[in-house]
Amino acid sequence: MVDILHRVGIKTPTPEKVYHALTTVEGLAAWWTDDTKGSGDVGGVLEFRFPSGGVDMEVTELRPSERVRWRVADGPEEWIGTTINWGLHQSGDYTIVLFKHEGWQEPVEFMHHCTTRWGSYLMSLKSLVETGEGAPAPRDVEISDWQ
Amino acid sequence: MVDILHRVGIKTPTPEKVYHALTTVEGLAAWWTDDTKGSGDVGGVLEFRFPSGGVDMEVTELRPSERVRWRVADGPEEWIGTTINWGLHQSGDYTIVLFKHEGWQEPVEFMHHCTTRWGSYLMSLKSLVETGEGAPAPRDVEISDWQ
Repeated sequence: MVDILHRVGIKTPTPEKVYHALTTVEGLAAWWTDDTKGSGDVGGVLEFRFPSGGVDMEVTELRPSERVRWRVADGPEEWIGTTINWGLHQSGDYTIVLFKHEGWQEPVEFMHHCTTRWGSYLMSLKSLVETGEGAPAPRDVEISDWQ
Repeated sequence: MVDILHRVGIKTPTPEKVYHALTTVEGLAAWWTDDTKGSGDVGGVLEFRFPSGGVDMEVTELRPSERVRWRVADGPEEWIGTTINWGLHQSGDYTIVLFKHEGWQEPVEFMHHCTTRWGSYLMSLKSLVETGEGAPAPRDVEISDWQ
């Protein structure tokens, strides 16, 4: 099992705005993908659609301003059985996001791509909270021939 | 042991410019850090300095337009004993960079940070080759309170 790990710091006085951006359809649509639907409550399913495909996430844990967990319910074959774990804590002027996409079977080339892709979306989340404007799909930054 | 993996695609007709940016002091200084010195030949040591510290890389393998390997000779404690492996191949209009920072002892918070940081510098490398302008330290993109 291999994991994708990231850490970003978002300049904001409390984790509240970041938590909102991770747990509401409106927030998620503003940094990950325009085409977001579903429910962000525990037990709910969030449906994310991209020009190249989509993923459904079951929300398995919510601790306000501290933790968000998703289980991949449907999506790319390599994502089935993986989980996404968002940890938040405040450090001075920054909300620190510790991100883990855990449980990949193999470090395949697609996993390399997803690492870079998540990093780019985390920068979009940072920009959304700091400036009010993210770069969700389909207006996301091109990182390669795989978009 | 855990690894940082990334994949970027750089729009350029051959891997030549990317290879140049990974193996010459001038090229490295234009996307990673302004303060780059040393020798990019096999057995040589490249010295990279940042406002927050530095790292020395021994060049252990070069295969023109295909592969570059570095061994961390000196740097952050967590980096000692790790290696950097750059794989290049052409896919249509893109040079694909498969990046691995291998051999971390533990998935510590600093490793999460370095994953995001490498992603940001890989985007700087992409920008350098595609537009002629990268974002090396100290003009790099801020990703957190750890810069």
